[in-house]
Amino acid sequence: MTRQIGFLGLGQMGKPMALNLVKAGFRVLTCPHRREAPVEELVAAGAIRKATPAEVAAEAEIVVLCLPDPPAVQDLLAAPDGLLAGLRPGTVVVDCGTSGLAVTRQAERAAAEKGAAWLDAPISGGVWGARAGTLTIMVGGDAAALERARPVLEAMGERIVHVGASGNGQVTKLVNNLMACINTATVGEAFSLGVKAGIPVEALHEVVSHSSGSNWVLENAAPRTIFAGNYQPGGRLRTMTKDLLLVEEIAKDLRVPLFLGSLVTQLHQTMMVKGHGDDDAGIVAHFYEELLGLSLASPAFEGQGE
Amino acid sequence: MTRQIGFLGLGQMGKPMALNLVKAGFRVLTCPHRREAPVEELVAAGAIRKATPAEVAAEAEIVVLCLPDPPAVQDLLAAPDGLLAGLRPGTVVVDCGTSGLAVTRQAERAAAEKGAAWLDAPISGGVWGARAGTLTIMVGGDAAALERARPVLEAMGERIVHVGASGNGQVTKLVNNLMACINTATVGEAFSLGVKAGIPVEALHEVVSHSSGSNWVLENAAPRTIFAGNYQPGGRLRTMTKDLLLVEEIAKDLRVPLFLGSLVTQLHQTMMVKGHGDDDAGIVAHFYEELLGLSLASPAFEGQGE
Amino acid sequence: MTRQIGFLGLGQMGKPMALNLVKAGFRVLTCPHRREAPVEELVAAGAIRKATPAEVAAEAEIVVLCLPDPPAVQDLLAAPDGLLAGLRPGTVVVDCGTSGLAVTRQAERAAAEKGAAWLDAPISGGVWGARAGTLTIMVGGDAAALERARPVLEAMGERIVHVGASGNGQVTKLVNNLMACINTATVGEAFSLGVKAGIPVEALHEVVSHSSGSNWVLENAAPRTIFAGNYQPGGRLRTMTKDLLLVEEIAKDLRVPLFLGSLVTQLHQTMMVKGHGDDDAGIVAHFYEELLGLSLASPAFEGQGE
Amino acid sequence: MTRQIGFLGLGQMGKPMALNLVKAGFRVLTCPHRREAPVEELVAAGAIRKATPAEVAAEAEIVVLCLPDPPAVQDLLAAPDGLLAGLRPGTVVVDCGTSGLAVTRQAERAAAEKGAAWLDAPISGGVWGARAGTLTIMVGGDAAALERARPVLEAMGERIVHVGASGNGQVTKLVNNLMACINTATVGEAFSLGVKAGIPVEALHEVVSHSSGSNWVLENAAPRTIFAGNYQPGGRLRTMTKDLLLVEEIAKDLRVPLFLGSLVTQLHQTMMVKGHGDDDAGIVAHFYEELLGLSLASPAFEGQGE
Repeated sequence: MTRQIGFLGLGQMGKPMALNLVKAGFRVLTCPHRREAPVEELVAAGAIRKATPAEVAAEAEIVVLCLPDPPAVQDLLAAPDGLLAGLRPGTVVVDCGTSGLAVTRQAERAAAEKGAAWLDAPISGGVWGARAGTLTIMVGGDAAALERARPVLEAMGERIVHVGASGNGQVTKLVNNLMACINTATVGEAFSLGVKAGIPVEALHEVVSHSSGSNWVLENAAPRTIFAGNYQPGGRLRTMTKDLLLVEEIAKDLRVPLFLGSLVTQLHQTMMVKGHGDDDAGIVAHFYEELLGLSLASPAFEGQGE
Repeated sequence: MTRQIGFLGLGQMGKPMALNLVKAGFRVLTCPHRREAPVEELVAAGAIRKATPAEVAAEAEIVVLCLPDPPAVQDLLAAPDGLLAGLRPGTVVVDCGTSGLAVTRQAERAAAEKGAAWLDAPISGGVWGARAGTLTIMVGGDAAALERARPVLEAMGERIVHVGASGNGQVTKLVNNLMACINTATVGEAFSLGVKAGIPVEALHEVVSHSSGSNWVLENAAPRTIFAGNYQPGGRLRTMTKDLLLVEEIAKDLRVPLFLGSLVTQLHQTMMVKGHGDDDAGIVAHFYEELLGLSLASPAFEGQGE
Repeated sequence: MTRQIGFLGLGQMGKPMALNLVKAGFRVLTCPHRREAPVEELVAAGAIRKATPAEVAAEAEIVVLCLPDPPAVQDLLAAPDGLLAGLRPGTVVVDCGTSGLAVTRQAERAAAEKGAAWLDAPISGGVWGARAGTLTIMVGGDAAALERARPVLEAMGERIVHVGASGNGQVTKLVNNLMACINTATVGEAFSLGVKAGIPVEALHEVVSHSSGSNWVLENAAPRTIFAGNYQPGGRLRTMTKDLLLVEEIAKDLRVPLFLGSLVTQLHQTMMVKGHGDDDAGIVAHFYEELLGLSLASPAFEGQGE
Repeated sequence: MTRQIGFLGLGQMGKPMALNLVKAGFRVLTCPHRREAPVEELVAAGAIRKATPAEVAAEAEIVVLCLPDPPAVQDLLAAPDGLLAGLRPGTVVVDCGTSGLAVTRQAERAAAEKGAAWLDAPISGGVWGARAGTLTIMVGGDAAALERARPVLEAMGERIVHVGASGNGQVTKLVNNLMACINTATVGEAFSLGVKAGIPVEALHEVVSHSSGSNWVLENAAPRTIFAGNYQPGGRLRTMTKDLLLVEEIAKDLRVPLFLGSLVTQLHQTMMVKGHGDDDAGIVAHFYEELLGLSLASPAFEGQGE
């Protein structure tokens, strides 16, 4: 069984994921990246400290990355003491970030030149899922490499889905986020109609959340954001808008017309222009609230945003 | 406690709802309407047969209607031996159909002239929910009338939601159906992008149905329709398109811009024009399938459409 | 040759049209409708005053109507001393208003019962065209009736177009107005992009107005409204929005998906909600101006709005 | 007065433009690029043949480029005997192609390093305008450089518009093409509604082309394409779709929501997917024709497409 696991990127998501690997009995290797504190916490839990990503890579059979954005992945790969410098033949790198298609393709080639495999494996489930080990992990890349990494992934998530060739993990994540953005706009638009007609938000929510109109945002996010009148992030509008623009890139290349997608992108851009980039993405609903002079917040949801 | 309940409209939804009232110990009065068989079945279960709607109304404290469309409600009200002919002061009529705002307003006035109350109380949950007594019932109208009818409604549904003044039950149902139509189009558009990118439908489904992009159609309807390659109805495209046009009427009157709603209406109209009115409403996804020359059906969902 | 012409509705458009008939040598009969002044002016020019629409109808071979809205047509027809009361077999009524399909159909039937013909003949060209006798008149209805009315129409317009059966005049007018509304929104959206990129409005206008992107609004209306920073009406947003909703009715009945049309309708509704109903319809461009914090007005167009 | 003019790119547009420079008395220098024949024709008219772009650049005070696409510009610049190799301080390069923002910025920098000026100067007016010398030329870049080039531009076009800083010529051209694409879709959608209602195409055209709904495509392109039932190109769908995607790039960077633009892009992509890339861009109207089973072609326009 795989025992030596490198883990790079101990942020809000990465740290609890790495702790789950330690708890599962893996020998986890890490090194300081941006901040020292999480490394110390992980070492205190039983992980091994290395000096550089290259050292981590040199000893690990599987390396898990959990970095915030594509440039961070590129930096980690290319630095003199970076991941590529230490990467050995046969190692499997599992990139859990939303690193985009371009970086994924470039990283896969660079790994292949070292005889190593690269899996793009974005995650969903949030910080709570990272802690509980219940993440969904959507994996693009070689099936055999996935089988080798599977025990590691199963220690971090409860749903490991092979979505096909390299890059497909990225596309799957973006398809999901496209749908999430439409979900938010749908709640904003349809609930505004209902509220304008005089129906209380909490009554609409109770009905629709148990009916065919329901969606994830209505059930999970809106009670903490839109219906609580709380647009503190959560997932930022800026991030979701960026993802929508990545979706459009892919759709363009594949010549897939996105009627709903492009409309929702304009609504997101509209709210970006209005200065809401650092608000929760649920702020898209506020387009309708502001226009119609109504509020989708209800005292029934007060306090759920905390 | 209320004991004498009239029940008119023993169709696919109405018959199991009426049977639940009998089982709950109510004295249920009905009369032949379109077909004799369901009346016999209900009487065999313990209900009382009357000759006409007027006779049912004359003895009932609560009358439940479960008719297929607005004209059926108008006919039942206005016939010489119809509901209005027998309606007594104090009776509460509960209309569980999607009868629209115009008929609801006209019926409420007619009932009020007899001293009776009219609740518009559309239902969701499908035939299975009707049998299991787990319907959601969204009730518009007088709160006191609802309290009198509540024990009856609780024998048919598990979620009785007062959505405000008369007509609001209709609007709530239409808001839900608007969202359901967007849900369907979202699955069709976003999954087509994913499939075009090379991701298997079942992998996409497994990921998204547990993530923020999920919606009711993805989880419940699509596995039996879109993903099973089966567009036998279910809820017909014609019906959903009609509801979208009713939504637009309301939005027009209230001056609520529906960006997503009007776009989805055009997609529905497009599929109506292509001759799919009697297919399941999931056929909206086929707009993308046909255009892109791909299929959202997967062997993994085979047989779920039956 | 036809000599006796009734003319009812001496408003901003109707009065100059009627004066042109007098100048062309027709014997024009009219009667007081809303205001006395224009009747006096017309009589001073050579027209004959009658007491009631019925008297006008009783002597006229052709009756031209130029009323502000559908209810005005209905009132004129149905009053005890109204048009129908005096209408004789063989008379041709030419309705130059935008009276809608419903009133047109009802009026045509009522006229036919009297043995008279009804032509729906909306006009375009504005007050200036009415004065100059250069209107475009789009005529729906019987071809033989049109031939009888043609000399009268030719005294008022320079382009008399038979657009087919009764009601088609209305539809043609609405198709034109749909396109005009899209024209306005196109100018607003595309010019906002150009201005945001740093291109002066007058440079954009000079280029595009001579290129493939040009449209009527860009060339004719915008220099007096949008580019002059002047949203005094002209044609009101309220009127154009009402026409868009009539377009949607027709599209619904004919099952024609209007992707652009429905989107533009939402933009119009958005500006109605913002309280701009009584501004010029060019205010739709202000959706983008306000959102992006820019102005499409340029000193180069100053004073053109007067 | 400027006398020595280089001209590179003697295609369908470039050759007549260069001939106009010769006729205006300029000493025009050119060299073989792709094909020999147009060079011979130009020399026969009085131009001077040089061996390479570098030689042309070395003697010219103004160099005009009229190349088919951005890569052709890059190649011409960078080749060992290319434009940059011969470019002298003080020369003004006028790029009449639609070369995009990226190439324009790169070229401007490269020219500046040689002490030369770069103007991006896309043209509109088609082959006929190129022959007649009536082009519109939209010029981005330094005002002083434009003044030096103006006599040359005036020999080729009748409308020379300075649209601001470098790159603005490109953006202006793209704004125009965005509007042209919306124009085409508007004709297709609105005329399909009219035809479905039973109005003959030629009647609709006669009315709208003189009314507020008119646009350039309706008046100029559609009679030769859509209404003639002739989708032989003209300007190809592929080219217009590419331009729309460039528009979206710019809009994204500037955060300008394009509601109409993004919708029209999807309609263009839809027709690309259906295999119409090499048809005339008017084919977008066929989306509605095909869907509704109707034709916007009319015998009245027969033969106009040739």
